[in-house]
Amino acid sequence: MWLSRRFKFCPSCGAEVRYQVPADDNRERATCPSCASIHYENPINVVGTLPIWEGAGGGVQVLLCRRAIEPRLGKWTLPAGFLELGETTEQGALRETDEEAGAHIELGPLYGLMNVVKAGQIHLFYRARLLSTTFNPGPETLEARLFHEHELPWDEIAFHTVRDTLRHFFADWHAGQGFPLHCGDISY
Amino acid sequence: MWLSRRFKFCPSCGAEVRYQVPADDNRERATCPSCASIHYENPINVVGTLPIWEGAGGGVQVLLCRRAIEPRLGKWTLPAGFLELGETTEQGALRETDEEAGAHIELGPLYGLMNVVKAGQIHLFYRARLLSTTFNPGPETLEARLFHEHELPWDEIAFHTVRDTLRHFFADWHAGQGFPLHCGDISY
Ligand SMILES: [Zn+2]
Ligand SMILES: [Zn+2]
Repeated sequence: MWLSRRFKFCPSCGAEVRYQVPADDNRERATCPSCASIHYENPINVVGTLPIWEGAGGGVQVLLCRRAIEPRLGKWTLPAGFLELGETTEQGALRETDEEAGAHIELGPLYGLMNVVKAGQIHLFYRARLLSTTFNPGPETLEARLFHEHELPWDEIAFHTVRDTLRHFFADWHAGQGFPLHCGDISY
Repeated sequence: MWLSRRFKFCPSCGAEVRYQVPADDNRERATCPSCASIHYENPINVVGTLPIWEGAGGGVQVLLCRRAIEPRLGKWTLPAGFLELGETTEQGALRETDEEAGAHIELGPLYGLMNVVKAGQIHLFYRARLLSTTFNPGPETLEARLFHEHELPWDEIAFHTVRDTLRHFFADWHAGQGFPLHCGDISY
């Protein structure tokens, strides 16, 4: 079982925590011997979009961002980032698309939900329709541009969930039967 | 903007944290003046199932659990709980169904994804087919039983996302056009 040990001290009172199984529980948790509080660690959500531009000639392009930050500095990704408190998954996906690409989009349905268990993350991607081809990348992005399928930098994609989402999209696009939700797990 | 202020002390070094906006960020975070670490707070995931029993006569029943713990002690819920590190959303939904109801199921596709923004939670429900009608509720459950639609205790349902999921299921069941994913937000 993969477990994080992020807590050394109690965030409520500052005492040193112990990892032990609380009563009525079956997993070790950061428990505080001083104030008796229990501090849980849970997977977190990464939300983003798959922004698509449909040209007049029937072709289709996807927006990728080249990362200006670690991890995967210099690699290409779909716009995505950590979901924040106070927002829905849709709002978070829109915000990240704005922050990382400065792209104007109309949000579509959920398209990918992938568990990245070893990172303690769930990645959610929404389909999105680009409303313009003018982008304004933020400080986390070196460059934002559109790619036709044959131009995609497959060896330079930042994350496995991004690669899977791009593969699903172009397979669904060619099949012409719609864009169902793709669920999956990344097990490494 | 809804913000949590869960951290008073740094979980890495035990010093008192300050809530301030880090460089290259736009939100207040728990930042440690002593060890310079930043501690993020993010929404967490609740995963569960909608366990269905299809009787020989064409009728359908759903499994609910009466809660033995707060919040909503004594109210009825679908089996669900917090996703843990080290498991996928599907594994978590299966585990909760086992822990809370002791039910044997075959997991189906994702059926509901709801943001409960004020609670800082995302609720995910998977459809599930019951393989038997023998249950073995755990310590968090007073009682686990099957309900026909006309028996459902609508005024005694523990959570809004459970009520919505049940409503969607019986509407889809009557419509007879399949069980598409329902996404939604609980905004109170
Ligand atoms: Zn404490
Ligand atoms: Zn510190």
